[in-house]
Amino acid sequence: MKTIAEYTSLIETSIQSIQFPSGKLESLYAPIKYALSAGGKRIRPVLVLMGSEAFGGKDEAAIKPAIGIEMFHNFTLLHDDVMDNSDVRRGRPTVHKKFDINSAILSGDTMLTLATQYISEVDNENLRLVLETFNQMAIKVYEGQRLDMDFETALNIKLDDYLEMIEDKTGALLGAAVKIGAIIGGASEKDADLMYEFGKMTGIAFQIQDDWLDTYGDATTFGKNIGGDINNAKKTYLYVAALAEGGQTAEALKAAFEIPAGEMRVKTVTRLYDKLGMNEKCSKAVGHFSSKALKALNATSLPEEAKETFRHFAEKLIGRKK
Amino acid sequence: MKTIAEYTSLIETSIQSIQFPSGKLESLYAPIKYALSAGGKRIRPVLVLMGSEAFGGKDEAAIKPAIGIEMFHNFTLLHDDVMDNSDVRRGRPTVHKKFDINSAILSGDTMLTLATQYISEVDNENLRLVLETFNQMAIKVYEGQRLDMDFETALNIKLDDYLEMIEDKTGALLGAAVKIGAIIGGASEKDADLMYEFGKMTGIAFQIQDDWLDTYGDATTFGKNIGGDINNAKKTYLYVAALAEGGQTAEALKAAFEIPAGEMRVKTVTRLYDKLGMNEKCSKAVGHFSSKALKALNATSLPEEAKETFRHFAEKLIGRKK
Repeated sequence: MKTIAEYTSLIETSIQSIQFPSGKLESLYAPIKYALSAGGKRIRPVLVLMGSEAFGGKDEAAIKPAIGIEMFHNFTLLHDDVMDNSDVRRGRPTVHKKFDINSAILSGDTMLTLATQYISEVDNENLRLVLETFNQMAIKVYEGQRLDMDFETALNIKLDDYLEMIEDKTGALLGAAVKIGAIIGGASEKDADLMYEFGKMTGIAFQIQDDWLDTYGDATTFGKNIGGDINNAKKTYLYVAALAEGGQTAEALKAAFEIPAGEMRVKTVTRLYDKLGMNEKCSKAVGHFSSKALKALNATSLPEEAKETFRHFAEKLIGRKK
Repeated sequence: MKTIAEYTSLIETSIQSIQFPSGKLESLYAPIKYALSAGGKRIRPVLVLMGSEAFGGKDEAAIKPAIGIEMFHNFTLLHDDVMDNSDVRRGRPTVHKKFDINSAILSGDTMLTLATQYISEVDNENLRLVLETFNQMAIKVYEGQRLDMDFETALNIKLDDYLEMIEDKTGALLGAAVKIGAIIGGASEKDADLMYEFGKMTGIAFQIQDDWLDTYGDATTFGKNIGGDINNAKKTYLYVAALAEGGQTAEALKAAFEIPAGEMRVKTVTRLYDKLGMNEKCSKAVGHFSSKALKALNATSLPEEAKETFRHFAEKLIGRKK
């Protein structure tokens, strides 16, 4: 198998070679080009290529569906940024800021259909299963986003509900990406399902780690400002797990979120997270879901070398300590 | 073949029997149920059923894709109403007014994926062609909506560009609906393409007629207020064709749109349309595209009885004189 850098480069080249209609339809396609050119880690399409190659598929057979997965991911970013009213994404203005809200909605819709077209570029024998995997994943992602939005105004969120939300919103896409790759590569149904489990659990661990980094990470390597979630009063794993502890400290935590956004709020909330052992609890949860991911991976019929490549991928993704 | 009322009733029953998840996902699915329950003429899914039966297909084989087409149509309404800032649809608050903008965006996205799932419920042998027809149509619809939005601020619109816009925004969906039905029914490629042409041309004629009705229709049978397009300064067929005439009257028309929205503006614009012969020009255009539709229909291998049913359908759709 190739290195992750080689897969990423293959994806980047393919994305840059996409030809969009221009002329009077420029206003529809410019936002799509803008969104796709922002880079990012291309984790999801890389997983498609890796899944395919691991089971004996050629890159040519998996590259279009890989682009489809990246197109889908970026479509969700366009619409989520409108819904969450986010101004910045990957250090640049979001699509609705750079263009306008209508462009983000309509070009986003276009990306979803383009994604479906790319996903469908597989052999006839695989079309139905690949398409079903993709569509079912998409529904899960919408459901996850809906739960996430509803959490904003919810007074009490159960930890299980939070985990369900990130499983839908983040886990399903990583799971579907690697499963679609595996199907294209010729994996058995059992192996394809195990790879889905690997991707899904890796996605959940990744999301919890991302929540952890917001409080305990290092701003220079994290690439975002520390405490952003705290200042936005975002319902993260730390927040939900901390409140689940109950008692006086939980009450103090609720009060801390009444402090005006800024350094003081971040410091106070972080101190309470410390007191409740959230640093360790979070790391433990990341370890728990990472183990589940590796257990599924180990149960596949893949050769040891391929398993090692996936382990390395998961470690790189989740393991960024600071 | 059945009567149009029978097809419509079949669609209505099927839509009402759809089971959506409830519980904590109610907030995602309630807007979808609300949108689908608004009724409407169900023209597009009826065309799927008609196309299928005409070529020997059973209703059971076409009903799911028919629902998919109606689901897609309603998804576009949810998003278009946000983009166009429309408050009322079929006499009720639009989804983003009844719920909120985020619900219209996210539940709309969900409807697009649900539509793709329903569309895919066809035999394996037809899956690829049906899916391609659907996805290509969807892209055309987005392109049409983009052109329509861009026209709002455009100073000069060519009549050809206007026709391209309604071909994309309205014609493509009617064409794809009847073509997908025809494919399911077992039509030859040639017949399926001719039926697409029939649907597309019928759609264009229908849209021009709809523009005409806004000025020359009768409020009680039209179901909308006369002059709504004039008061909203909408770039309709009448407006674009009138300006294309050039000269003093065209200049007077531009000035008339500076009159504050209300009865006076509607009267003045209508008088200028009259002067430019727009009533006749519009009727002539409707006749032109209707003839093209019938020509395509007549070229199919369908038995005369089936052709007669489609003629009747087109006449009912376009022919509403006032």
